[in-house]
Amino acid sequence: MLPDHQLLRIPGPSPIPPSVTRAMSQPMIGHRAQETKNLLKDIKPRLKRVFGTEQDVLILSGSGTAGLETAVANTVKPGEEVLVLVTGAFGDRFTKICDAYGIKVHRLEVTWGEAVNPEELKSILIKHPNISVVFSTYCETSTGVLNPVDKLAKVVHDHSDALIVVDGVSCVGGVETKMDEWDIDILVTGSQKAFMLPAGLTFVAVSERAWKVIEENEQSRFYFNLKKYRDSLEEDSTPFTPALSLLFGLQQVLNLFEEEGLEEVYRRHSLMKDMTRAAIKALGIPLLTNDEAASPTVTAVKPEDFDAEALRKVLKKEFGLSIAGGQQHLKGRIFRIGHMGYCSPADVLQILGILEIGLIKVGKEVKLGEGVKAAQEIYLQQEAQV
Amino acid sequence: MLPDHQLLRIPGPSPIPPSVTRAMSQPMIGHRAQETKNLLKDIKPRLKRVFGTEQDVLILSGSGTAGLETAVANTVKPGEEVLVLVTGAFGDRFTKICDAYGIKVHRLEVTWGEAVNPEELKSILIKHPNISVVFSTYCETSTGVLNPVDKLAKVVHDHSDALIVVDGVSCVGGVETKMDEWDIDILVTGSQKAFMLPAGLTFVAVSERAWKVIEENEQSRFYFNLKKYRDSLEEDSTPFTPALSLLFGLQQVLNLFEEEGLEEVYRRHSLMKDMTRAAIKALGIPLLTNDEAASPTVTAVKPEDFDAEALRKVLKKEFGLSIAGGQQHLKGRIFRIGHMGYCSPADVLQILGILEIGLIKVGKEVKLGEGVKAAQEIYLQQEAQV
Repeated sequence: MLPDHQLLRIPGPSPIPPSVTRAMSQPMIGHRAQETKNLLKDIKPRLKRVFGTEQDVLILSGSGTAGLETAVANTVKPGEEVLVLVTGAFGDRFTKICDAYGIKVHRLEVTWGEAVNPEELKSILIKHPNISVVFSTYCETSTGVLNPVDKLAKVVHDHSDALIVVDGVSCVGGVETKMDEWDIDILVTGSQKAFMLPAGLTFVAVSERAWKVIEENEQSRFYFNLKKYRDSLEEDSTPFTPALSLLFGLQQVLNLFEEEGLEEVYRRHSLMKDMTRAAIKALGIPLLTNDEAASPTVTAVKPEDFDAEALRKVLKKEFGLSIAGGQQHLKGRIFRIGHMGYCSPADVLQILGILEIGLIKVGKEVKLGEGVKAAQEIYLQQEAQV
Repeated sequence: MLPDHQLLRIPGPSPIPPSVTRAMSQPMIGHRAQETKNLLKDIKPRLKRVFGTEQDVLILSGSGTAGLETAVANTVKPGEEVLVLVTGAFGDRFTKICDAYGIKVHRLEVTWGEAVNPEELKSILIKHPNISVVFSTYCETSTGVLNPVDKLAKVVHDHSDALIVVDGVSCVGGVETKMDEWDIDILVTGSQKAFMLPAGLTFVAVSERAWKVIEENEQSRFYFNLKKYRDSLEEDSTPFTPALSLLFGLQQVLNLFEEEGLEEVYRRHSLMKDMTRAAIKALGIPLLTNDEAASPTVTAVKPEDFDAEALRKVLKKEFGLSIAGGQQHLKGRIFRIGHMGYCSPADVLQILGILEIGLIKVGKEVKLGEGVKAAQEIYLQQEAQV
């Protein structure tokens, strides 16, 4: 196999555009120098648009999990009751973080591969009126489900005084997000997915309603104290040394978002999802999620008559293509294709062309070219509509 | 379209592997320092293997054309007779260089898209016994023809005292090359094709027979004086300041060649050619060259019922895919796909998946997926044989 040739199509970390790599290679600057203030001042308003909010988007150095823990640590006190909507491994992670903080957790768990039903959420909120925060994933990376967070937020605010905290790690930047309009209280994402950066930054935006809760919360926390980040960002600064290279890269990512246009970014992701799903269907392989619940950033496939792990192995060995397996009880039972961030319809056609060969190699009888054809047809149909 | 996403599939310059880009980013060193001597000492024996020669491969800073001119300037004197085998634009370039040196040029021109027939060469050599040098291309980039330089060299040496100079710019490093065994006198190539580097280096290897001619040639020349390069390289040095970043990159290219194995590099190129040609045939579009004359590095396609330039335009606009058009009288009449250097079978499947969409867009009726399928079948057949 051609060395030094990797096709990274897991649902994050995702490939880095060359111009972002170049931006990250800029010489280091002083973290308290005017250059850093200028950088943050430039990034601040542009990042808000991606989140669909008028609130400042706070930037912490850390992985997405650091952002999720920050949301928990700032809003809930030990002994309080919260509700976690568990649609997969990352919903499950919220419960583990809450456990570590001594918080009483109610779980609304749905079959992995399905989205949360707002009606079910409503009945739990009515049954447990002391729930102070509801935690939900937007895109559940482990299943490729996109939860209807707009509807979930409405139910939360219509039927309780709770906050709704949303984990948008594997989709914000690749799917339309209207934090203010949808009335989401805290929205968290990471840098290594649709944001086309290495891991290392986490973004947290907070509603006015949530700030009131946070201001009254005197829990001991230091690095994750959102008030420190808010107060510093007002002066175009950060409370602790920021990961400056990633900020250089973020500035270029925002350039790319604006060059393509956010609407077009979202349309491209939706097109890549439709191409991928049409191809898998044409090849006669079951998808884990139905069309309505499917995320534009990751597609989970559930083989019935071949070994997902054997397929992943052959694709990696022969083509340098990395796709993801399943997590927890889905381990070995599904595979997941990431089509987010620096990924184009041309890349989807490449993944599918390789995938068909891999399927033959693991003994799955497919008609070569049929998946690619279905994806090409979707491309031509959707392009004709634009 | 996704910005900052270019698919460069012209027949050179070709894409640069990330590890080569990183190697070229090393801090600059002194061109007369021990580090440079060590670099050249490391490169010297490894480069010979790619050329299939025991002779030193001389490295000049300049484009491939500089290498071709060097071969002319060192071997021929004004007024002498030479023969140029013209199978396309780059054969033609040899005649222009010879013209600039006041050399009497015989042309053996074949229909573009065909290879030179050794029998025709033989009859010209017999008819013109004063020919002192025969110039041939190995891969003719403008048509995708691979000339049988082994057979041509044999004819030259069996039927004349002439030297044979071969332009290997668009194939050495991607196709088996046995300079010594085939008795080629001067072999030239450039850095920007199968060598996976930016343009800027040209490589010239010289047989003992050719060195005798060069040593007796007192023509005025300075930068292109091969004797200076030979004498300097014996001391692990260069006569003039070398393009050091490109040498850093060259060292990494040699690492990649050795990691993959040269035999495997050649097999990959041959596979990519076969996949591309099978796909074009399956789509019912004529190829410019026949199977026997086809180069493993570039495929020329000659549409009959659609506009090659319109196709190139739509592929570039919608997918960022660059393929080449025709040169000289083939301009607008053919398109050329480069599949050399940092290019894999997975990349060929991507090109073909996109190409089929482009064909539909320019009004060519093709069955979607049929080209990809033909290429996938070739891949599976050839892999099964290994």
